Amino acid sequence: MLTIDKIYDASKVLKEVALQTEIIQAQKINPESEVYLKTENLQVTGSFKVRGAYYKIHNLTAEEKARGVIACSAGNHAQGVALAAAKGNIDAVICIPSGAPISKVEATRRYGANVELVDGVYDDAYRRACEIQAETGRVFIHPFNDEDIIAGQGTIGLEIVNQMPDVDAVLVPIGGGGLISGVAFAIKSLFPKCKVYGAQAEGAPSMLGSLKSGAPVELPSVSTVADGIAVKKPGDITFQMVHDYVDEVVTVSEDEIATAILALIEHQKLIAEGAGAVTVAAAMFNKVDIRGMKTVCLISGGNIDVNILSRVITRGLVKEGRSASLTLSLTDKPGELLKVSSIISATGANILGVNHNRSALGTAITACELQVSMETRDHEHVAEIRRALTEAGFQIVH
Amino acid sequence: MLTIDKIYDASKVLKEVALQTEIIQAQKINPESEVYLKTENLQVTGSFKVRGAYYKIHNLTAEEKARGVIACSAGNHAQGVALAAAKGNIDAVICIPSGAPISKVEATRRYGANVELVDGVYDDAYRRACEIQAETGRVFIHPFNDEDIIAGQGTIGLEIVNQMPDVDAVLVPIGGGGLISGVAFAIKSLFPKCKVYGAQAEGAPSMLGSLKSGAPVELPSVSTVADGIAVKKPGDITFQMVHDYVDEVVTVSEDEIATAILALIEHQKLIAEGAGAVTVAAAMFNKVDIRGMKTVCLISGGNIDVNILSRVITRGLVKEGRSASLTLSLTDKPGELLKVSSIISATGANILGVNHNRSALGTAITACELQVSMETRDHEHVAEIRRALTEAGFQIVH
Repeated sequence: MLTIDKIYDASKVLKEVALQTEIIQAQKINPESEVYLKTENLQVTGSFKVRGAYYKIHNLTAEEKARGVIACSAGNHAQGVALAAAKGNIDAVICIPSGAPISKVEATRRYGANVELVDGVYDDAYRRACEIQAETGRVFIHPFNDEDIIAGQGTIGLEIVNQMPDVDAVLVPIGGGGLISGVAFAIKSLFPKCKVYGAQAEGAPSMLGSLKSGAPVELPSVSTVADGIAVKKPGDITFQMVHDYVDEVVTVSEDEIATAILALIEHQKLIAEGAGAVTVAAAMFNKVDIRGMKTVCLISGGNIDVNILSRVITRGLVKEGRSASLTLSLTDKPGELLKVSSIISATGANILGVNHNRSALGTAITACELQVSMETRDHEHVAEIRRALTEAGFQIVH
Repeated sequence: MLTIDKIYDASKVLKEVALQTEIIQAQKINPESEVYLKTENLQVTGSFKVRGAYYKIHNLTAEEKARGVIACSAGNHAQGVALAAAKGNIDAVICIPSGAPISKVEATRRYGANVELVDGVYDDAYRRACEIQAETGRVFIHPFNDEDIIAGQGTIGLEIVNQMPDVDAVLVPIGGGGLISGVAFAIKSLFPKCKVYGAQAEGAPSMLGSLKSGAPVELPSVSTVADGIAVKKPGDITFQMVHDYVDEVVTVSEDEIATAILALIEHQKLIAEGAGAVTVAAAMFNKVDIRGMKTVCLISGGNIDVNILSRVITRGLVKEGRSASLTLSLTDKPGELLKVSSIISATGANILGVNHNRSALGTAITACELQVSMETRDHEHVAEIRRALTEAGFQIVH
């Protein structure tokens, strides 16, 4: 049974390795709420995962430590376990699915772990990790369904109530549920009136579905930019704790996540990964009622692959109408491009790129397609550009 | 004459509006130095500029305040003046060159200033601001060559020595020189042994050139991604102060700036604009000797346009060999693309995009060009891919 004393113990142990991350005010997230960010993206290893992993490994017996540890992860848990094992001088093997971003594999290696790349997806890597565990007797470090792991993550709850004793609501991301189990348990033990809400990606709503079913259920597949919480099935321990201690679980869409990442970049100058930004998305888009409340959004991590980051930025800009792309069908004669660009410039938009395509399907032999990408102010501005081009006789394909 | 008492006074006044920003350790910037970041990118308005602007405006007489203020800027100074004027209930006009990013114009408007968009570049906007000043009698708020402005920026120097009394070296960006003048004066007044270094972009080395000439000189043109420090000529006050109080001024290249921005994103989860990252670039690429020193890099701001951010990330990845693009000349027959992709995949690279071009100049009528962009580990990995393709008989155009 998890106790608040155990979380206090974890907090003491973690002083050796983890930071007490800052809580930063974020004024532009929701005009009706006082929003703050608990910045675990600024934690050592770039995510909260080091807390649970270090406390778990710290509590192993000398005999278990000698056997070494094994874990399976495509992301933050890998780095958390690798660092925790390195600090304790313990041998670690981490199975990582081969499709994981190279940056995450390299980061795990830099902490000194032996990385085993496994062909396939997470489930394949998990199976391989179980095989290695059986063959070698290494201790398996589960990413969430483990009381020591949950106690380690719960130290964030202690920090929040210490740093901000008048907090009204805390929003926490949910993947397997280890983070929110610990945080909700700590907060409800100390400040039962503080609301604790969970946020999931629409593309991976395993905890929400399980709550509705009354037991942990497995989703056939999950798909979200928030790869850190793309979990098919919550654990039995974490399911029960979320059921008992969490006020409500909500979901956010992919576009909402992208918009939240972009808002954090522009207004807070902070990088959050998809999983880290779901709480901010929930606050921005009023998924829970936080009006008039002092609300802490837990940003669980910042380890977003920069290639993906570029794409997220693009998507967020398009969603806000701050970037737009039009395809026109032109007769292929001189001067057309000049006309199009002067119409667009007159509306105050900046042209970022132009692509001419003479071999587009469905265009007449003398016609060509022109794709224009622009920096715009908002959706109304994009509509104005479309009107101006149509009025000048240009045909907008899409 | 600037005095340390004036900077202390500014510090007291600024408590009303500015944050004392955190100093954060950055372990991966330079292995031979203990590097810290003074995070003015997390300052109100996203840059240090609010400090000088607020102190300047606070010190105006009641009569001057009634006349209103005018400033000219394409960026952070605009937002700093706009916020400072709003706090003091003072009418503000800001001239902004029309090519400035829409996001910056909108941010300035949101703080309540009247924005006048001026066709052309910074110099045109500056001329227009001078005209308006002459016509209306508004007080001109200079971005750097002003003692009150310098005193406001100097409060950062006070904070650094208070927050880290054992600091050995401070790196400060230089555009017009207002920031470094204040910071260097404060630090040398209190801790004369602490080194103060200035960092400029190679494409805008006006202070370095002026120091070599012994007087402020004007560059014919400046060009850098670090738009916040793209200044053609330093002021006479700031030139003299840099001459008297700064130990050395160095420059960094565009690629070095991009790499620094990328390192801050990946390792620190922080967004810096180009001007904000020049100090980190100087520390990363050993432009000054900081071995064994406790070094603070001042990150002056984080207001980078997100469209530019995407491009900077791409450039940084290419420079590090973590992203690469190859163009191959193929005979236009079935199966060629499959062959190329299997060779690339076998090396462990991820293909991010493919572009087929049948109408490239200089290719035979039956040939086509194939452009492949890939995620790679490092330069050695890219070389390995090139070798593998060449050995399989493919012709690499570039």
